[in-house]
Amino acid sequence: MKLEIYDSTLREGEQSATVTFSRGDKLKIIEALDNLGVSYIEAGMVTGEADARFFEELSELKLKNARLVAFGATCRPCESAALSPSVALLASVPCDTVCIFGKSWDYQVSKVLGTTKKENLRMIADTVSFLKSSGKTVFFDAEHFFDGYSDDALYAMEVLATAREAGADRLILCDTNGGMLPDIIGLATAAACERFPGIIGIHCHNDLGMAEACTVSAVLSGCVQVQGTVSGIGERCGNANLNTLIPILQLKLGFDCIGERLSALTSTARYINETANRIFDEREPFVGGYAFTHKAGMHIDGVMKSPRTFEHVSPEAVGNLRNIVISSLSGRSAMADKMAGILPHLDRNSPEVTKALIAVREKEALGYSYEDAEASLALVIKDALSLRKNYFDLVHFKVMTDEDAGGHNDQAVDAMRSSAMIKVSVDGKEKLSAAEGNGPVNAMDKALRKALSSFYPIIDKMKLTDFKVRVSSGGATASVVRVVIESTDSKSVWRTVGVSPDIINASWQALRDSVEYMLDMNS
Amino acid sequence: MKLEIYDSTLREGEQSATVTFSRGDKLKIIEALDNLGVSYIEAGMVTGEADARFFEELSELKLKNARLVAFGATCRPCESAALSPSVALLASVPCDTVCIFGKSWDYQVSKVLGTTKKENLRMIADTVSFLKSSGKTVFFDAEHFFDGYSDDALYAMEVLATAREAGADRLILCDTNGGMLPDIIGLATAAACERFPGIIGIHCHNDLGMAEACTVSAVLSGCVQVQGTVSGIGERCGNANLNTLIPILQLKLGFDCIGERLSALTSTARYINETANRIFDEREPFVGGYAFTHKAGMHIDGVMKSPRTFEHVSPEAVGNLRNIVISSLSGRSAMADKMAGILPHLDRNSPEVTKALIAVREKEALGYSYEDAEASLALVIKDALSLRKNYFDLVHFKVMTDEDAGGHNDQAVDAMRSSAMIKVSVDGKEKLSAAEGNGPVNAMDKALRKALSSFYPIIDKMKLTDFKVRVSSGGATASVVRVVIESTDSKSVWRTVGVSPDIINASWQALRDSVEYMLDMNS
Repeated sequence: MKLEIYDSTLREGEQSATVTFSRGDKLKIIEALDNLGVSYIEAGMVTGEADARFFEELSELKLKNARLVAFGATCRPCESAALSPSVALLASVPCDTVCIFGKSWDYQVSKVLGTTKKENLRMIADTVSFLKSSGKTVFFDAEHFFDGYSDDALYAMEVLATAREAGADRLILCDTNGGMLPDIIGLATAAACERFPGIIGIHCHNDLGMAEACTVSAVLSGCVQVQGTVSGIGERCGNANLNTLIPILQLKLGFDCIGERLSALTSTARYINETANRIFDEREPFVGGYAFTHKAGMHIDGVMKSPRTFEHVSPEAVGNLRNIVISSLSGRSAMADKMAGILPHLDRNSPEVTKALIAVREKEALGYSYEDAEASLALVIKDALSLRKNYFDLVHFKVMTDEDAGGHNDQAVDAMRSSAMIKVSVDGKEKLSAAEGNGPVNAMDKALRKALSSFYPIIDKMKLTDFKVRVSSGGATASVVRVVIESTDSKSVWRTVGVSPDIINASWQALRDSVEYMLDMNS
Repeated sequence: MKLEIYDSTLREGEQSATVTFSRGDKLKIIEALDNLGVSYIEAGMVTGEADARFFEELSELKLKNARLVAFGATCRPCESAALSPSVALLASVPCDTVCIFGKSWDYQVSKVLGTTKKENLRMIADTVSFLKSSGKTVFFDAEHFFDGYSDDALYAMEVLATAREAGADRLILCDTNGGMLPDIIGLATAAACERFPGIIGIHCHNDLGMAEACTVSAVLSGCVQVQGTVSGIGERCGNANLNTLIPILQLKLGFDCIGERLSALTSTARYINETANRIFDEREPFVGGYAFTHKAGMHIDGVMKSPRTFEHVSPEAVGNLRNIVISSLSGRSAMADKMAGILPHLDRNSPEVTKALIAVREKEALGYSYEDAEASLALVIKDALSLRKNYFDLVHFKVMTDEDAGGHNDQAVDAMRSSAMIKVSVDGKEKLSAAEGNGPVNAMDKALRKALSSFYPIIDKMKLTDFKVRVSSGGATASVVRVVIESTDSKSVWRTVGVSPDIINASWQALRDSVEYMLDMNS
């Protein structure tokens, strides 16, 4: 059976406390979601002329799989839909499908709208009819449906019936406050599906950490549309997470959501999070970097014997990868496996494996970890086996930031400059270079590559693509800083780590590892 | 009805790819969990002498509410429990309660253990009896119980019966791979509870994002013990999150878990995450900083009219707070409310509110956000209203990091030094000072406070407690850096923000705001 997947990342997602999308971000996200194959993309709320212009622009997009949806509200109490500026604006945007929300909880009608139950029904009927007569496909979001169903089920169902009679094409049951348990969602949805078969959708929030369980419960009760957002981004604790729901519905329950494009799920989820400038939660089910990552020795042992022992689905099905973490908890077999690229034919009892494990554990004791820095791990292993090549020696460096103008209103200190001077030696030949940059690390990176490029021209092909800083809590600015740098030569991507109380020192270590790893790959 | 809460943060939590606990961390976490009032604290796995010594040390703790549990495995195939070094070690630790895991899925017995179903039962019976005869309370973790129940229910139940007959005090049903849906968990748990009433526990993983929903389903089917971890920390996608489960079970379903200590839940959750050196997920249900944070204008309006309109429980019940986010999505009423501390008697239509909103939006366009930097927000508002006091002018500063020794093996560059020189002017009087530090920001902080303390001695009472850096993705080290600094004067805590391509510049802005805010509070 085919389920409609309705993505609301661009509206609900933007209500998250930490997310704001630019126009360009929105276009990128729409393209990515369309490629993934969702059925509907809610492109935003229509409240003013700027929104209407945005939909004009969107109407020129050629989408392959999805339909765009414009979001809005019903008319206000004592206002006719035809004369409501906001409803008229919504009717005017060049977007075939609109979704409007209205109240289905009597408590909200009196407390928030300050009107009568009857007038609320009039507003819904009037708005839906007007939009239908404007030629729209109309989805009706029954806000707070489950609270309403618990308080006054008769009225909540009357709201649905009103929207339906006025012509609504879908009735969406919303758990707006996110406080409902899956069983209650299932029962109320079944009641709605029995009365309005084939047109019910579900929209859950995550305030109990159960948005996905509630959604599945609703699907099993007969609804045909699933609303949610990428990574569950949304107000408060977020919305139902489509990255989790799509594989559950498709792989575990046999509903068709996005067909074979499921294998693009992980890359799409990461791309959209990056576009939203959001730290990706690596613990996310299915798509997270840790979802198929094994650390405990026994789990690693089991997965190596048979993946099914500790994996409920195959990572490939959602485009993810299995990952064995090397740490003091992982065992000798995992390390031998990891070392195969450097020294084949090792087994778990080889003395080389012992040496490498000891080296990693010593580094861990200093605050290093290699879960997201496989290039530095490779260098540590080579070092332990005395296989690490010496490409250059650092003779000396100096990094400076200074600013000469001042004054109270000049808070952002626009005149600030960072510069770095570095001297390296390669086979006895010294080279001094200097560079300015946007910040000390950028200056250091430029100066190092300038100094080395005459010895190793290939270094010009490499560039830094990400730079992450994590400060360990404790003594504030005197704490330990962990810097992870991601680099690329356009063919592959690698990550390196540095740890120190000093951010410049930590960045230096990660930079140095990145350059050495690149030279190693090309030697 | 009383439910037993069993915390496994110290074992399952440490299997998370990014978590490692020191001995001191473990002691702090045990104390915090005991104060919160959980029933059992799994203090770790016993695999060697070091673990045994740790339990010796723990036996001297005076706990008020919780019992400690030592974790281990059954004996191996063809090994007698009495002669198994690991079982003997587990029996010898001074800890009344032990939890041992054994296989309950026939597939695991043959694939991973490489033994027969019969021998697996013998290992379980032998180990449980031996530990009981050593005077222990024994919990039996039926690993992969739900996969086992689906494949061969008869054998899975036989495993439980075997452990029970050998004397196990609790039988814990584990969804080890985390791949089961709540309904199946509920059905299988009901079957186990019917046969072994009053002694069944539940242990769920989060690979479907449903660990809490599955746990609730099991509780409603009759189990008496709930296992999980703080913030769901654990291998892969984590374990059932006790921060979410405890309030659901207690506030929504009426089970007694930790009684009135529920109001300490938020502070305990934050403290344990901090001890684990983990970035706290502010979207966490109930305890997250965004759990009761409202951003959309309509939601803010609703919550101000009646909290119940957009909150499913009261934040105070779990020791959390309501928060209205000021951003371009929040409305005029919210800003007026936020400004009440600076200028009372404003309403949503006051021109001051317009000025403040415009100022915030201008800052947002530059990459600032004030969700976690309320002190900087207060300064921006004062600035917009021309109420900001000028405590000092910056004349000039310079920050340097240099290192003079070198060489390939000297990767960590131990000789690196950071120093800062700063000149400020207060009422026309200039003061120059310099300081060295662990890194450039620490040096800058010290130098600034040295320069100001002769003018404002109260500044000596202030210290930095946290320093966070977020780099926006895009151009790597040339991207924009957002620095948030948390400061305290032992009485209150405040946070400030700085944004710039240069980390030194961003840190300077946050430092400057922090000092100004502190002086404002004391003027």
